[in-house]
Amino acid sequence: MRILIVGSSGTLGRAVAAALAGRHEIVSAGRRSGDVRLDITDPASIEAAYAAAGPLDAVVATVGKVTFKPLAEMSADDFAVGLRDKLMGQVNLVLAGRQVLADGGSFTLTTGVLDREPIAAGSSASMVNGAVNAFVMAAAVELPRGLRINAVSPGLLTESVADYDAFFPGFEPVPAARAARAYRKSVEGVATGQVFRVD
Amino acid sequence: MRILIVGSSGTLGRAVAAALAGRHEIVSAGRRSGDVRLDITDPASIEAAYAAAGPLDAVVATVGKVTFKPLAEMSADDFAVGLRDKLMGQVNLVLAGRQVLADGGSFTLTTGVLDREPIAAGSSASMVNGAVNAFVMAAAVELPRGLRINAVSPGLLTESVADYDAFFPGFEPVPAARAARAYRKSVEGVATGQVFRVD
Repeated sequence: MRILIVGSSGTLGRAVAAALAGRHEIVSAGRRSGDVRLDITDPASIEAAYAAAGPLDAVVATVGKVTFKPLAEMSADDFAVGLRDKLMGQVNLVLAGRQVLADGGSFTLTTGVLDREPIAAGSSASMVNGAVNAFVMAAAVELPRGLRINAVSPGLLTESVADYDAFFPGFEPVPAARAARAYRKSVEGVATGQVFRVD
Repeated sequence: MRILIVGSSGTLGRAVAAALAGRHEIVSAGRRSGDVRLDITDPASIEAAYAAAGPLDAVVATVGKVTFKPLAEMSADDFAVGLRDKLMGQVNLVLAGRQVLADGGSFTLTTGVLDREPIAAGSSASMVNGAVNAFVMAAAVELPRGLRINAVSPGLLTESVADYDAFFPGFEPVPAARAARAYRKSVEGVATGQVFRVD
């Protein structure tokens, strides 16, 4: 397969690329690095990236910003960041990719453990993850041409513990390489409309 | 208790008002009717409505627009309608209400069965409902002064079957009066961070 990985320079993106690279052709993508460059908040930029990427069988998104801030300090504008970036950025990849992917192709989006467990300062992340998970369930039943869509929802990555452990006290860390298996399951398997939780 | 019901003129809002009216003082609110008027997409309008409503122990929201359209026709702008109205409209009520509600007060928001079951043309509704459910889980752990927050997620209302049955084939209808019990549970009970599913 020919697979576009959006966010390929991140911890998760690199692990997904490593898990898929042996058997597939990877097209890397990111804001500042990769075979193609794009801004997921800009639909025109996404369309240009698809045009540059050429034929594709799968799209994996391991990107998305949200605001981490105590709820007492969260404003509507703070929530808008996550809605525009991690939520609609990934949805934009699907909307523009509907016409691009080969028959039977797949989209794999990224959410995270805050969809099911709360932390302090995590209200925007939880909101966005819940939105993406439910979108995936619903979009799956309407995609044409055998296209599939799933989400992977990993716990705190082992590689991120040094930076974020204090925000996720007692959360079981998940090695990025283990999370990457769920992306492989989504891309190479037959499931659609699923959220693969990796705890 | 003194309870603000936003969307009090709708099918669900009327049923909730009827379920709570005997034991509580209801302040009705809506865009075009009610004791106070407000536009939930406009934070300034919400603040003015809270100021007009006076002291409150609970806020119930039974409002929110989303776009129902086949995924093939859905654009980013179509998704923006639901994010701005049913999602951030309800979240705006919480953000502005944090300083207004009495200690131990509660917010009860509304989602719906499309958070857990897909229908054709329902991708925006599913997205928004999933976002609100996850927001409620996360916000609950950060609200101050014993404030609580829950969501009620009812199935297709019996009262709406005549209009929407074709979109919800085989879905078990839920009388609005039965859904209203879950709002009473949220307002008069002690739960927080919960999604009360009424199927």
